[in-house]
Amino acid sequence: MGLFSKPIKTLDDLFVHTLQDIYYAEQQITSNLPTMAGKASNAELKSAFEHHLTETENQVKRLEQVFQMHGLPVKGVDCPAMDGILKEAKEIMSDCDDPEVCDAAMLSAAQAVEHYEITRYGSLIAYAKQLGRNDCAQVLQETLAEEKAADHKLTAIAESRVNQQAV
Amino acid sequence: MGLFSKPIKTLDDLFVHTLQDIYYAEQQITSNLPTMAGKASNAELKSAFEHHLTETENQVKRLEQVFQMHGLPVKGVDCPAMDGILKEAKEIMSDCDDPEVCDAAMLSAAQAVEHYEITRYGSLIAYAKQLGRNDCAQVLQETLAEEKAADHKLTAIAESRVNQQAV
Repeated sequence: MGLFSKPIKTLDDLFVHTLQDIYYAEQQITSNLPTMAGKASNAELKSAFEHHLTETENQVKRLEQVFQMHGLPVKGVDCPAMDGILKEAKEIMSDCDDPEVCDAAMLSAAQAVEHYEITRYGSLIAYAKQLGRNDCAQVLQETLAEEKAADHKLTAIAESRVNQQAV
Repeated sequence: MGLFSKPIKTLDDLFVHTLQDIYYAEQQITSNLPTMAGKASNAELKSAFEHHLTETENQVKRLEQVFQMHGLPVKGVDCPAMDGILKEAKEIMSDCDDPEVCDAAMLSAAQAVEHYEITRYGSLIAYAKQLGRNDCAQVLQETLAEEKAADHKLTAIAESRVNQQAV
């Protein structure tokens, strides 16, 4: 959840902080996905990254909508978890020169990103429901469904690569 | 995947590096779980953390087994992703004094940990199969099943908390 701008005293504070955490994370993802799409050799993987960039841009807008619905200014906070996941991804991308290995590493990095998001959106939805904000939960649920679908697509690409290798 | 001790040139390098990454991560989890169990107010959550500590100690042993099976020295490398996830968890734990809010934050942090592990073990299993090391994949699969079960348990606790709140 990063460095706290304000102490977390109530469930509402925790909801707001997690919203700011994932807002920062989505922006970091948006700025990293074009590089990953550019570096991907596998056509399916490249297309998955490009498609997810468009989705992520919409997810940022949805978060802005939730900030507004909850009467809050749109704001991000540091997210050391997403910074760490993306740092690992960038290190691998700058280090590997075999396209096959690089694709495998990017697939893994992208799945770490998706899983982080799945867990954070899951928490946000639980908090929103506890706070009686089913309207916010509903908007966040749309993004959670997209993140799960993106993860399934990445798993399918990974499995198809494993099967190709086996052949 | 942290700071690389050696360049990632082949799929085997990537497999080994990911093994070292998750080995470091599991050790960090082992040293943080007792504090989380000590701080949890909800009895189910406390018990889930305690149970998962025992599981994690076994998972560390399983990783050591895979290192040996693959003819490698047992070794960890920095994992900025897990460091980031745990940094967020520690910040929240030191910051919140409401037991209800603290439990909610720890639940969320623990799910972020589980999801990171699920994605890394998933990748490791895919790499092992591609490398023709079904024996290693099988050992890693046992841990993956435990991580998924731990995540489901945390989700069930989160949902039961939401339902209690609704009542």
